[in-house]
Amino acid sequence: MTNMSLKASWVAVDWGTSNFRAFLMTPEGQTIDKLTASCGLLAVPNGQFSDTFQQLVSPWADSINSLSVLFAGMVGSQQGWRDVPYVSLPVSPDALIQNMADVTLPWGKKGWIVPGATGDNDFDLPDVMRGEEVQLMGLVSLTDNCVTHAILPGTHSKHVHVKSGELTHFQTYMTGELFSVLKQHSILGRQLPEQQHCDTSYLLGVDAGRKGALSSVLFSARTQRLFNHVAPENVESYLSGVLIGAELGTLNEDGPIYLVGDEKLCQRYLLAIEHLDLQGKIMSGDECFLAGMTTIYQQSRNRCHVA
Amino acid sequence: MTNMSLKASWVAVDWGTSNFRAFLMTPEGQTIDKLTASCGLLAVPNGQFSDTFQQLVSPWADSINSLSVLFAGMVGSQQGWRDVPYVSLPVSPDALIQNMADVTLPWGKKGWIVPGATGDNDFDLPDVMRGEEVQLMGLVSLTDNCVTHAILPGTHSKHVHVKSGELTHFQTYMTGELFSVLKQHSILGRQLPEQQHCDTSYLLGVDAGRKGALSSVLFSARTQRLFNHVAPENVESYLSGVLIGAELGTLNEDGPIYLVGDEKLCQRYLLAIEHLDLQGKIMSGDECFLAGMTTIYQQSRNRCHVA
Repeated sequence: MTNMSLKASWVAVDWGTSNFRAFLMTPEGQTIDKLTASCGLLAVPNGQFSDTFQQLVSPWADSINSLSVLFAGMVGSQQGWRDVPYVSLPVSPDALIQNMADVTLPWGKKGWIVPGATGDNDFDLPDVMRGEEVQLMGLVSLTDNCVTHAILPGTHSKHVHVKSGELTHFQTYMTGELFSVLKQHSILGRQLPEQQHCDTSYLLGVDAGRKGALSSVLFSARTQRLFNHVAPENVESYLSGVLIGAELGTLNEDGPIYLVGDEKLCQRYLLAIEHLDLQGKIMSGDECFLAGMTTIYQQSRNRCHVA
Repeated sequence: MTNMSLKASWVAVDWGTSNFRAFLMTPEGQTIDKLTASCGLLAVPNGQFSDTFQQLVSPWADSINSLSVLFAGMVGSQQGWRDVPYVSLPVSPDALIQNMADVTLPWGKKGWIVPGATGDNDFDLPDVMRGEEVQLMGLVSLTDNCVTHAILPGTHSKHVHVKSGELTHFQTYMTGELFSVLKQHSILGRQLPEQQHCDTSYLLGVDAGRKGALSSVLFSARTQRLFNHVAPENVESYLSGVLIGAELGTLNEDGPIYLVGDEKLCQRYLLAIEHLDLQGKIMSGDECFLAGMTTIYQQSRNRCHVA
């Protein structure tokens, strides 16, 4: 990926709970170089974000102190470098830019953290995101503003509505975290042989999960195995189906649902979406992130250059 | 509890995944003595159920080899002493008796394991219980056959319909296990101070949980705290409310709903049930278990005495 013949002008940083990623960027949004580390917020000792950041970007030590630095993700949370208040819906790139907060970089200049978004969901419950709002701004830009509905699968899957390029509504589903916690710590994952993915078991789970009453339907990941409707090595496929089915059960969209994220996980969602006779379209989560950060960088150049 | 002036004629054993309990009983169903141990199935080494049972009941060694022994619970599962097939709905005491399976006790006589029950639930998914069927038979007997709907809260909460003294339908909700797993292993329980129960937070959770889409509503156990709608020390009360609300959300019953189980947990369910303008009535889980085992013992005396 390294392409040092291009001229870097800024750095995009995705700093989450478990991982750190930094991208050396041209003004036009091309990536010149990339750094990754499994050094998420939880691994930063005693709030030493500045020192840790300096170490993480040390391969770029020669040039970085002249560049703008934009951060997104949980780095702007209570557990992060600075607690940046959420921006309320509707959210545009401009709203994000207006509400960025600065931190002092190790070399004395300011870096800028993009805020997360908040709004009440379908159930009038408060909902939040940090990081996905940037991917959505990128999705809007990459699709020429024609996206209306997107799903960002993951630990906390986000279902999002977009109107005229603004994020207008979203709802979180704890699908990924429930899957991980239940297979590791509940009776549903106990005494399973090595798992193999099975589309049939997965779609059986999707159909069960759509029925509602998740805390009841989950138990079928045990009983379907007990009565040999699901093979022991396919129980995780079924469980994954139940959780994704519960999430997709209420979908009723015209037009394509954009799936933004990890390719393999998006493929799994696409299978369920097509099984439900809906239309889906996969977009790379990384590309959306970088497109979103580029939009924010380009629209905020004056502000980010304040040192 | 020991009352050795009464004459023992049989032993009721509740042997589950985590705990062992045995009751020395009179023919009429009075308890003479009780043994408890945290020696559930998972603690029995290499399938040595006979040896383990002998150790557990050694305080009764003088008399037990002349008594009938009835077992209920997970001791009749794949992981137990003997895998006793489930009985299909509808289930009466007679159906349980006809399908009991024997094991050879350490002193050579036969002991009898009461089978569990199975049936398709509201979602046409297979459902199972082991142990609760005995409590239900006891509930029927203690209420003079006038129970129509009961909830047995716990790790895997059971919602049950009864008609003319027979168990006709039931549905499992993984409420207790989800609560335990989520507070210990998910973001919802992370970095919480010492918890205090709070009815207001609990009922706020019940109202949220009733709304459906559990994998989404669960996330509000994080956001309600983030926006100070729920105090950090009351998050578990709220989470408990969400899970119980999700379970109770579809209830629509005339007549009282019997709550069978641990007093404290039943009180918590009762609070939610009354909040939903329904009627509840608490019955001791232990009393129901012993009444159910007594019904089975009395109706099966000839068979159980086969040695």
